Amino acid sequence: MVAEHPTKLARPEVEKLVREVLTQRLRGQIAPPPSIERHAAFPHRPGGPPHPLVVNVSARHMHVRPAELEVLFGPGAKLTKLKDLYQQGEFASEQLVTVIGPRQRIIPNVRILGPTRDYSQIELSYTDGIYLGIDLPLRISGNHEDTPGATVMGPKGAITLHKGVIRAERHVHMSTEDMAYYGVKDGDYMKLRVEGPCGVTFDRVKVRYHPKVVLEVHIDTDEGNACDLDSATNLELFK
Amino acid sequence: MVAEHPTKLARPEVEKLVREVLTQRLRGQIAPPPSIERHAAFPHRPGGPPHPLVVNVSARHMHVRPAELEVLFGPGAKLTKLKDLYQQGEFASEQLVTVIGPRQRIIPNVRILGPTRDYSQIELSYTDGIYLGIDLPLRISGNHEDTPGATVMGPKGAITLHKGVIRAERHVHMSTEDMAYYGVKDGDYMKLRVEGPCGVTFDRVKVRYHPKVVLEVHIDTDEGNACDLDSATNLELFK
Repeated sequence: MVAEHPTKLARPEVEKLVREVLTQRLRGQIAPPPSIERHAAFPHRPGGPPHPLVVNVSARHMHVRPAELEVLFGPGAKLTKLKDLYQQGEFASEQLVTVIGPRQRIIPNVRILGPTRDYSQIELSYTDGIYLGIDLPLRISGNHEDTPGATVMGPKGAITLHKGVIRAERHVHMSTEDMAYYGVKDGDYMKLRVEGPCGVTFDRVKVRYHPKVVLEVHIDTDEGNACDLDSATNLELFK
Repeated sequence: MVAEHPTKLARPEVEKLVREVLTQRLRGQIAPPPSIERHAAFPHRPGGPPHPLVVNVSARHMHVRPAELEVLFGPGAKLTKLKDLYQQGEFASEQLVTVIGPRQRIIPNVRILGPTRDYSQIELSYTDGIYLGIDLPLRISGNHEDTPGATVMGPKGAITLHKGVIRAERHVHMSTEDMAYYGVKDGDYMKLRVEGPCGVTFDRVKVRYHPKVVLEVHIDTDEGNACDLDSATNLELFK
């Protein structure tokens, strides 16, 4: 058989594979959580922005109120840090939950980001939403008007959120000096050009002001994969 | 408890959910295949292109040679039509396979598109590739240089492809008159602007000429979800 042709498997090999796949499924071996941020950044240029332009891909994740955390992980539970995120004080926790959609399909290993907040929220990609059967609304974090809910399972209990399941609107965190450099204000929309083999320009990147942040664009995994951020050759943020 | 707060589930409810999820997992109930094409098109404009601009999202799928089809589905197996695709003669078949990646993770219900071809090929999104553990190369259909393989299971047997697993490069099918209208030639790159709440401009949309096609842009599910094609308010194809 020449190299161009796929190999035909013998019966014992087929049986072995079937057995392995079935065993894996029965054992409930499932994918580990995706890494919570994938990163692209380009060096500081003379005359450039006050902070380097950093683009991070946010994988699906959850934010929780302390009360829900205790239902999911037991009385007195606290988030424990796995890894710092780019913005100071933010972190990926070690705590993982399972999200259950309306058709009883599940996504396991959804990581909680810390610290706890005053609302619970689940941020998914449209790919995730289609899989779960949730028609995700596009929202800036914390805006839960007309948003669907979901059931969430932790090791010690489950909660049903009645709202707060969203696709996060693509956005850029900016401090006062970042906004001054780009000539924009809180709530404005900018564009992000990602050059490379899968080059994409994202419209409608919303400016989110906070005095203590550093410049950082957040896109989700659909967006990060569409533009293949890992192979980007240049990034540009503009009005 | 006020409306803003999620409902705490009682212990019997938690147990019921856990039982349902475990039962579902043990039964191997898995997602049905995604619909193979999602569609956006805008009406013909006076003085516009000879064919209306149609953008279709291709979900993960496989193309097969007749020989591999017989290994997967048994001697003499033929593809049977589920649904016509947009290009004349192309169709989504009723035949589904399971793709097994190098880490023994699987994606079930991958649809074969017909008719059979003179090469076998699997087209996945980067989201799929990350899940399976396959570093997908970006390729135009049929270019299998330096591409990885995968194991594919059908109801009657399995094959191991040594190559042909790709992310399809975004492309636009054009006839002679489409190329004349846009002033491009086979192999050129164009841009596709998708306006809407998740507006995106895709660079590097490759022109693929065939005398018998009608104008059609193909993007994958990562790209279709990144721009939320379903909610697009306008489409524009340009150099």
